Amino acid sequence: MNLIDNLKWRYATKKYDNTKKVAAADVAKIVEAARLAPTSSGMQQFRVLVISNPELKEKIVPIASGQQIVADCSHLLVFAAWDKYTEERIDNIYQVTTTERGLKEGHFNDYTNRLKAVYLQQTAEENFVHTAKQAYIGLGLAIAAAAELKVDSTPMEGFNNAALDELLELGEQGLKSVLLLPIGYRDAENDWLVNMKKVRNAEAHFATYIQ
Amino acid sequence: MNLIDNLKWRYATKKYDNTKKVAAADVAKIVEAARLAPTSSGMQQFRVLVISNPELKEKIVPIASGQQIVADCSHLLVFAAWDKYTEERIDNIYQVTTTERGLKEGHFNDYTNRLKAVYLQQTAEENFVHTAKQAYIGLGLAIAAAAELKVDSTPMEGFNNAALDELLELGEQGLKSVLLLPIGYRDAENDWLVNMKKVRNAEAHFATYIQ
Repeated sequence: MNLIDNLKWRYATKKYDNTKKVAAADVAKIVEAARLAPTSSGMQQFRVLVISNPELKEKIVPIASGQQIVADCSHLLVFAAWDKYTEERIDNIYQVTTTERGLKEGHFNDYTNRLKAVYLQQTAEENFVHTAKQAYIGLGLAIAAAAELKVDSTPMEGFNNAALDELLELGEQGLKSVLLLPIGYRDAENDWLVNMKKVRNAEAHFATYIQ
Repeated sequence: MNLIDNLKWRYATKKYDNTKKVAAADVAKIVEAARLAPTSSGMQQFRVLVISNPELKEKIVPIASGQQIVADCSHLLVFAAWDKYTEERIDNIYQVTTTERGLKEGHFNDYTNRLKAVYLQQTAEENFVHTAKQAYIGLGLAIAAAAELKVDSTPMEGFNNAALDELLELGEQGLKSVLLLPIGYRDAENDWLVNMKKVRNAEAHFATYIQ
C-alpha cells in the first residue's frame, strides 16, 4: 500500500542538505494535500505559509530553540490557525460553499447559526484550541504528500509561538502559529536519526478491536 | 499523485450501506496508517478502538447526537488520547525505543527529564489538549489510507465525549475520547453530499509564499 510504504520511509529528518531545493511543483503538491485536508464543519481553520527566503529562515532559528533545520531546509512550512472564530469567518466559508455548489442564498443559515452558538460563546483561547487541532490534520497529510514525493520533512511543535507570530505578522491576519514543517532533502551522512529503527507501539497495544 | 487523487475522491460520507463490511485486512491497513503517524516527541499519545459490534455501535448513536452513521457504518474507529502525562508513560515509551534501537540504558534520560519538566507541571486539562492534538494527525492519515482503499469515512468531533468515555471504560485505561471515524461503503442513492462539489479555500487564500 502506497501510503503505508511512504509512512515507513519517512522519518523526522534532523539534518538537511542546504544545497538541495525542492522543486516548486512538488512544494505545491505538498501544500495542496494540506489544503484538501478535512476540517471541523469544513471551515478550514488554518493556513500555510511557505518560507524559502534565506534571511527569514535564519531569523526563525533562534525562535525555534536554535534548531538549524529551519534554516537548512529547502522550504519552511508554517501552519497557522485562526486566533478565534468570528461571525464573519463562519459566514464567509459558508458563502463560498453556497456559491460553489450553486445553492440558494441562506441555505446554510440554520447550520451556521448553530456553529455560532457554539463557538462565539467560547473564549478566544478555547476557540484556538479547536482551530489549532485542525492544523494537525493538514500537517499529517502534508507529511504524507512529501513522503510520496520522497521529500523529507520534520514536524515541529517546540518553538516560541508568540515570537514567530510577531515576526510573520500573523496577528494582523487573525492567525496564530501552530506547527512548523521544514521540508527538503536529508543530509544522510550527518543525520544521527537516519539509520535508527522507527519505533511505534506494537499493534496489539495501539488498537483494540471490539467485535 | 496518489494521495491528492485520493483526497479529492473522499468526502465526509453521510449515509452508509449497512450491508457492506470492510474486509479485516483493509481495516488493519487503516489502523496501521494511524499507528505510523508521527507524534510529538514520538510519544504516540493516542490509541484507536475499532468497533464492529452491532449492539455497541447502536448504543453510540444517542451519544453522537442521534447520527445513524455510527451504527450503519462497517466499523467505527474511536480515537482516544492519554488523559494526562505521567512519569511512567513517558518512561515507558522511551524504554521501548531504547530497547528496539539497542541503545544503552538511560540513553534518553536527559531528554525524558526535559519532557517531564514541561508536561508534569501542567494541569491534566492542558496535557489533554496536547495529547488530543496528536490524534488529529492519526485521523488524517487513517482517512488517507481509507481513501486509497476506496473505503469511505466520516471524521466526527461532535459527540458526548464523557458519555462515550464511560460506555467504553476509557477512564480506566487512562484515555479520553477525541474523535470518531466511521468507515464503510457509501449508500450513494441516499447520501445528500455524495454529488456535491468539494469546496476548499482557493489556493491563493490558503497559502502564502515568502521567497
